[in-house]
Amino acid sequence: MPDSKEIIAAFMSLQDRICTRLEDIDGKQKFLEDNWDRTEGGGGRTRIIENGLIIEKGGVNFSHVHGEVTDLMKINTEITADEFLATGVSIVLHANSPHIPIIHMNVRYFELSDGKYWFGGGIDLTPHYVVMQQAKEFHRQLKSVCDKYDEAFYSDFKKWADEYFFIPHRGETRGVGGIFFDHLKEGKNLTKANILSLCLDLGGVFPELYEYQVSCGKDLIIEKEHIDWMLNRRGRYVEFNLVNDRGTKFGLVSGGRTESILMSLPPRANWSYQRKEKQDSKEQFTISMLRKNVDWLS
Amino acid sequence: MPDSKEIIAAFMSLQDRICTRLEDIDGKQKFLEDNWDRTEGGGGRTRIIENGLIIEKGGVNFSHVHGEVTDLMKINTEITADEFLATGVSIVLHANSPHIPIIHMNVRYFELSDGKYWFGGGIDLTPHYVVMQQAKEFHRQLKSVCDKYDEAFYSDFKKWADEYFFIPHRGETRGVGGIFFDHLKEGKNLTKANILSLCLDLGGVFPELYEYQVSCGKDLIIEKEHIDWMLNRRGRYVEFNLVNDRGTKFGLVSGGRTESILMSLPPRANWSYQRKEKQDSKEQFTISMLRKNVDWLS
Repeated sequence: MPDSKEIIAAFMSLQDRICTRLEDIDGKQKFLEDNWDRTEGGGGRTRIIENGLIIEKGGVNFSHVHGEVTDLMKINTEITADEFLATGVSIVLHANSPHIPIIHMNVRYFELSDGKYWFGGGIDLTPHYVVMQQAKEFHRQLKSVCDKYDEAFYSDFKKWADEYFFIPHRGETRGVGGIFFDHLKEGKNLTKANILSLCLDLGGVFPELYEYQVSCGKDLIIEKEHIDWMLNRRGRYVEFNLVNDRGTKFGLVSGGRTESILMSLPPRANWSYQRKEKQDSKEQFTISMLRKNVDWLS
Repeated sequence: MPDSKEIIAAFMSLQDRICTRLEDIDGKQKFLEDNWDRTEGGGGRTRIIENGLIIEKGGVNFSHVHGEVTDLMKINTEITADEFLATGVSIVLHANSPHIPIIHMNVRYFELSDGKYWFGGGIDLTPHYVVMQQAKEFHRQLKSVCDKYDEAFYSDFKKWADEYFFIPHRGETRGVGGIFFDHLKEGKNLTKANILSLCLDLGGVFPELYEYQVSCGKDLIIEKEHIDWMLNRRGRYVEFNLVNDRGTKFGLVSGGRTESILMSLPPRANWSYQRKEKQDSKEQFTISMLRKNVDWLS
């Protein structure tokens, strides 16, 4: 059964592999690394890429923090232990081209001093322009990883992502979804090692998922109206992350490292009042697809 | 004693006067108006100005809503009544020039079916570049209005603004502050009519306050680095409004009209990782002044 040291090492190594592959995909820029320590215990390796050939701004962050369980952490939970340990890898990539989706991934592990533990994770795609074939391929790749562990996972985790990546005040999902899971622990057909392996497999397939999306969009012609639309969609991404994302909110109020948490925000975003899309436009089609319970695989 | 009908009429008329004066100050664009109804009772007049000579994007909103008190409204309050009425005017203006500050104003009135009522309000200034003389003049004008009602008001409300307009995860105030008050009701030297009059006086002086700030900044030369800095500062404004502003958060979760609430967001904003300012630059000076308890009048 993997212990926290092994999991931390596995996540650090995952961060390394993903960064190397993303630098290849970008073809120009390298990640810059900031190592930081947390006064209360632990620290992280924040890696940021900016002004690349493909990636306008992105982060691949590893962190490993531990310390006393605070009252804030106990809200709405059954946590009674005194000490916690949390480690994870978080990624958000914003591309230069409006034809390349925003992509996000997170895998995380949480352990308490009373022996309880769980894993969480998620990958979701936010195309500025929804293209059915690309959304289908994204979900197919995720299903293929999930199916190795449990045939119910993809369907369960896809529903969970639909609920999680939703912006209530806009009545829109933030993109075409993906998978999301939390509080996953060993069960009748699942060991702790299996769950770690699931997280690492998701991390392993991540560069491939992204590379496919990049390959579909990178040579498409970019017009000014595509950029305007991308910046508007990025505005929605900001709204989700600052208003709705539990991880971001928890990180900010619990005294996490602000610049690492907010690496998820886009380099540029726009807001205009009551933007209206043209009838039968790609923009209008995109909005029509930003809803829960779409069967992308059909 | 002014009743809710009179207050609503006074706030609508205030909105009219402010819009007319702001159109004069802008010199090019006019406000566009959206009238909206709220299913549960009431509605509003949202007025937006975009792409003006001075104002890049701004809103001057009036709303008047009423209905059942929800559980959400009762959290952390002593409200036991069944019905409420709320009305107010809210303003945020983002200028084209980095040398013209972002300005915000809000006056509001809340009444319960058990007869309880209170007023709230605030005005604050967010210069992209802090200029001491301009901050001083802003606070002097606010003090001059407050002093007509109670000599303690400016000092009390200025402290309140320092606390309210603060971004904990950045350790910065959102600008040079101003005044903020809430739950203000009649007292020994103050009638309900006085408080309404204070709100209307603040609204009345608002265009003057802004005109002075515009006059100081509008002819200054704009360089690319000023724009970059403005967009970075606007990013902070987005963070405050979406993460910290109680009014925005309450509006979004309680099913308010999203496009009216989020008119406060800037037309464009930027985020970059770990932006560093040059030693002894105006940018660095500005950040050094974004703190509580600065005595701007001295």
